[in-house]
Amino acid sequence: MSEWTQLWLNYERVRNDIKSVNITFSGFSEDNRVVGSMIDELRRGMYGLLGAEVSFGENGAGSSDTLKIEIKKNVAVKAEGYRISCKNSTVSVEAGDENGALYGTYHLLRLVNFGKLSDGCEVNSSPDNPLRMMNHWDNMDGSIERGYSGRSFFYVNNEIVVDDRTRDYARFMASIGINGVVINNVNVKDAASYLITDRYFGRLKELSDVFGDYGIKMYLSLNFASPIELGGMDNCDPLNEEVIKWWDDKCKEVFEALPNLGGFLVKADSEGRPGPFTYGRTQADGANMLADAVKPYGKLIIWRCFVYNCTQDWRDTKTDRARAGYDYFKDLDGKYKDNVILQIKNGPMDFQIREPVSPLLGGLTKTNQMLEVQIAQEYTGQQIDLCYLIPLFREVLDFKTYCQKEKDTVADVISGRAFGNKNCGIAAVINTGNDKNWTGNDMAAANLYGFGRLAYDMSLSAEEIAREWVSQTFRIDKNDEDLIVDMLLRSREIYEKYTCPLGIGWMVTPNTHYGPSVDGYEYSRWGTYHRADHLGLGVDRSSNGTGYAQQYYPENAEKFNDPDKCPQELLLFFHHISYDHRLKDGRTLIQYIYDTHFDGEAEAEKIAENWNILEGKIPEESFLRVKNRFERQIYNAKEWRDQVNSYFYRKSGIKDEKGRKIYE
Amino acid sequence: MSEWTQLWLNYERVRNDIKSVNITFSGFSEDNRVVGSMIDELRRGMYGLLGAEVSFGENGAGSSDTLKIEIKKNVAVKAEGYRISCKNSTVSVEAGDENGALYGTYHLLRLVNFGKLSDGCEVNSSPDNPLRMMNHWDNMDGSIERGYSGRSFFYVNNEIVVDDRTRDYARFMASIGINGVVINNVNVKDAASYLITDRYFGRLKELSDVFGDYGIKMYLSLNFASPIELGGMDNCDPLNEEVIKWWDDKCKEVFEALPNLGGFLVKADSEGRPGPFTYGRTQADGANMLADAVKPYGKLIIWRCFVYNCTQDWRDTKTDRARAGYDYFKDLDGKYKDNVILQIKNGPMDFQIREPVSPLLGGLTKTNQMLEVQIAQEYTGQQIDLCYLIPLFREVLDFKTYCQKEKDTVADVISGRAFGNKNCGIAAVINTGNDKNWTGNDMAAANLYGFGRLAYDMSLSAEEIAREWVSQTFRIDKNDEDLIVDMLLRSREIYEKYTCPLGIGWMVTPNTHYGPSVDGYEYSRWGTYHRADHLGLGVDRSSNGTGYAQQYYPENAEKFNDPDKCPQELLLFFHHISYDHRLKDGRTLIQYIYDTHFDGEAEAEKIAENWNILEGKIPEESFLRVKNRFERQIYNAKEWRDQVNSYFYRKSGIKDEKGRKIYE
Repeated sequence: MSEWTQLWLNYERVRNDIKSVNITFSGFSEDNRVVGSMIDELRRGMYGLLGAEVSFGENGAGSSDTLKIEIKKNVAVKAEGYRISCKNSTVSVEAGDENGALYGTYHLLRLVNFGKLSDGCEVNSSPDNPLRMMNHWDNMDGSIERGYSGRSFFYVNNEIVVDDRTRDYARFMASIGINGVVINNVNVKDAASYLITDRYFGRLKELSDVFGDYGIKMYLSLNFASPIELGGMDNCDPLNEEVIKWWDDKCKEVFEALPNLGGFLVKADSEGRPGPFTYGRTQADGANMLADAVKPYGKLIIWRCFVYNCTQDWRDTKTDRARAGYDYFKDLDGKYKDNVILQIKNGPMDFQIREPVSPLLGGLTKTNQMLEVQIAQEYTGQQIDLCYLIPLFREVLDFKTYCQKEKDTVADVISGRAFGNKNCGIAAVINTGNDKNWTGNDMAAANLYGFGRLAYDMSLSAEEIAREWVSQTFRIDKNDEDLIVDMLLRSREIYEKYTCPLGIGWMVTPNTHYGPSVDGYEYSRWGTYHRADHLGLGVDRSSNGTGYAQQYYPENAEKFNDPDKCPQELLLFFHHISYDHRLKDGRTLIQYIYDTHFDGEAEAEKIAENWNILEGKIPEESFLRVKNRFERQIYNAKEWRDQVNSYFYRKSGIKDEKGRKIYE
Repeated sequence: MSEWTQLWLNYERVRNDIKSVNITFSGFSEDNRVVGSMIDELRRGMYGLLGAEVSFGENGAGSSDTLKIEIKKNVAVKAEGYRISCKNSTVSVEAGDENGALYGTYHLLRLVNFGKLSDGCEVNSSPDNPLRMMNHWDNMDGSIERGYSGRSFFYVNNEIVVDDRTRDYARFMASIGINGVVINNVNVKDAASYLITDRYFGRLKELSDVFGDYGIKMYLSLNFASPIELGGMDNCDPLNEEVIKWWDDKCKEVFEALPNLGGFLVKADSEGRPGPFTYGRTQADGANMLADAVKPYGKLIIWRCFVYNCTQDWRDTKTDRARAGYDYFKDLDGKYKDNVILQIKNGPMDFQIREPVSPLLGGLTKTNQMLEVQIAQEYTGQQIDLCYLIPLFREVLDFKTYCQKEKDTVADVISGRAFGNKNCGIAAVINTGNDKNWTGNDMAAANLYGFGRLAYDMSLSAEEIAREWVSQTFRIDKNDEDLIVDMLLRSREIYEKYTCPLGIGWMVTPNTHYGPSVDGYEYSRWGTYHRADHLGLGVDRSSNGTGYAQQYYPENAEKFNDPDKCPQELLLFFHHISYDHRLKDGRTLIQYIYDTHFDGEAEAEKIAENWNILEGKIPEESFLRVKNRFERQIYNAKEWRDQVNSYFYRKSGIKDEKGRKIYE
């Protein structure tokens, strides 16, 4: 028994008619380390899926039970892309570079796995996003901020660990097309401040080499105050010559020691982190200073846009946290160096189950942009509750920003299709830890898998991805596969139903962010309010309110600004609405709240029951782990249902029309 | 500069006419360690207060500037009591034992300090309570549970510290009549579980010797699961022969090593602590087993009655945490061994700013009882907000339980006057830490001083105690003394006004217990609800509700049961009341809530302003520390005012009649 699972790379036997696999390379050197990984994976995969031994190089005429694979360099194939074709039992994988070949290999293994490798099949794929990254919020003491799957597998007691698990992690990431990994928490403190000193270069080099074997660049989160903390200086003003010099020297030292490091991720001026604002400088001043320092080495600065006033007064209804990103960054559009990328969360608040798309995405037209999503389920059930997030990400990618006439969706913006950027893409706050199954809830691996696949190929639907994941993870028949796919596809809506209604968000337990606390953030300093009173709830972000809706291009601004045109699922995000307001289906708002909370809990119970159908059909350990999570989800769903319903009943005095139990 | 202050023992000069003090002992040996402490204190005090050198023993005829003091043993004086009389410039202090003589000495020093030592003065005092204890919630890692004055001065890094500060602490305690100190948190875990092993006996002996020098017995909080954690047994069932044997052996070992140990304090079956319930045994089974084990050494088991279901469901309106103590302990009345004392919190909940008196006090008639109060201001402002608690304690002591025709107050019960007990008294969860001023807020020392004085002499008024404390702590004129006394006396009512109305309690931030969160505990598992809806609030604990009111003797039960007879300050503790209900003064409940919250905040501002009058009159360091606390109190009071008012306005929709600002 291994100490960890192989997730979707478990390569169980799918057919027995092929006895051997013969692979030839042309244009790629077997000495290349990525090619080496490819060879290892082909051996492992073909043996697992087919029971076939793999040979390399020309070895005469193949017999009918031999599968021939030719892996060829073809510079006409786009960067990191691949073409797969199959005729006369010979498969050709063409790629312009090693990463493309590796991704093509994984795709080939999937085709075998799905039983879709047959004469005439053709695949032509290249990544939609130049950068496809994972952000780990791992701390060096081994804890993980917002981690729900055990401890870090990168760190134990402030030391970096590089072992077989690291290599498996890199394999999983490569198999879904990830090409960048940030290995430490954006809140850089304690030992992590010393990652850019020779104290850690040795192990970092080892780690970046493992990633390098799989075509992945390593990145570090940076402490903007390093000149103070490490350099003994009294400031970290980005326009100070000594500070600039310090960073220049530091970058020289770092990139000489760690040539495979891709650059730095920076959270500055946010939630207590130091930044350029301290010195009256702009975010661009801060980012550009670092960009200049890393430029000689061809590296990137990824600068997070999660900047807002986290000491707001709840009594102040004019300040609006949702506005902050746009307010701070829009005016500086075009002021950023070419090797700076602004990393923008999908919504203007913070990874709630429902938010509008951030107006910065597409709002910026002259600045490199990267979308940040969170597959760690901080606000979406913490890998206890099932919540398949790909439908949410799909909605974000498909959102029309109206930033120009065509190619104006978020997908167009972050891929570079809209404005021709090269430094852009998508990043996810990852949901892994050292739990045996990597993601706490086995089902949460669908978000890990799905994010990578979607980042590479933004044309995939949430259902396609779900189906791919299920079919690689479990060896079950079509009906059961449908059952799991159905669970996944419905899970986000179910979670939304029993938690925060119509985009309002934040009714969670403070700090932990699991479970309900309707007023938990209502009188806090975090800018997170629902403004419920005895007549209604919701935040007026229209032109009569905070004006947030006006941050969008006119087509969206007009829609969000008007309660009659506003998409219903975002109604309370943009408007303060009376409990007796009739929604489009004729129900009052309060009745809608009651109905969705009763329904959401009931639906959660239903999918939990459905899980039991799988007993005996999937490995018992997985079955029981997920069953246990469902039990906890039901408990949570009941708490949400009853607390939200009681809260609004107590506040409004309006009874449920259907007379269901609401605790008084 | 010392690293810590001398609190009320700072002995500043009060007169200059006495040049020398001559002291003689009769019946007491100067070799006795308590007498030794007395001698040290007289030297220190007389030098400080009078500038006089102290000599001991007969030294011929005194001159007119010599004060003669005779300290005499007199077995007619009650245990730990003293008599002081003064004629012809000769003071006589008589006592039946060393503790009495020591307390008499401190009283004598107070008389000198107050300018009240003159011919003809007579004092006759003996402690009302046999046991007068401090409970430290100090953990061995140096943290203090609910500590607001720095770190522990007993522990650093799991080691016991015995130094000059320990001795000063013992002096302070003796000066106010404390004769027992529990040195570790009732939640016994980690290193503290090993206090009863030879790992710590050496230092514990040193510590108990310092206490012994001041007539104080040391006590330890005990982990009921010690047979498991230390003994390697698989259970700690109090009726298991092996467990009994283990405790017998353990007690022999402990009391041989630590003869000055007074016994053990036990928190069992409470908030996750192990206890007899685990094995289907009663609280009496648990306490008596330990009582038998300590009996050969003449020691005590103090058993806390803070037992309740802390995993309640908020939806369950029948279960009532307030009932739990009585429900668990009343039936066992008379079943406890004579060396067991039940330690009962003043209220049935947990140290809220206003609660009814626990019905167990006096409800038990055949069991030793000890009152537990909390001077650590967990729910009462955390030594940031000024809250002089002696008026609250006075109310508790004066509460008529109706347990018999006469001598039926709480003071009668805990002193043993009611039922003739010897093992009884009063304990406080202490508010000290290693802050320079011991109590975080200099003014919080009034609670420390006041508790000790009140525990010794339950006839003292809150004002008398306040005046004693101020006049020993600050050398200021009468007007300024009046100013501080007035602040202290009004502070509890002010705090109550801007926080939780009419006895409802619990509207605090979960976990930290500082600052408002009206719904913070409303949907929790702690049994702490206000049940506010759009029509009213309060918990129905009458016979129509949870029936808690019926736990009192009929006279009280009838009063509490009826909203018209219920003391107004407890109205919401006992009844669910409509916002439009008219209180006795004609105001509606909602208007009362608004008024008290506006008034309370305004009054807090007023006393904060008054503090500024003292600038330059008291040591600057004290002045600034307290000024800073007042600033934080004002911030807190505004938060409370606005959050509570907004909460109830939003819920009720009823406007403030006076049109003051309530945030919508």
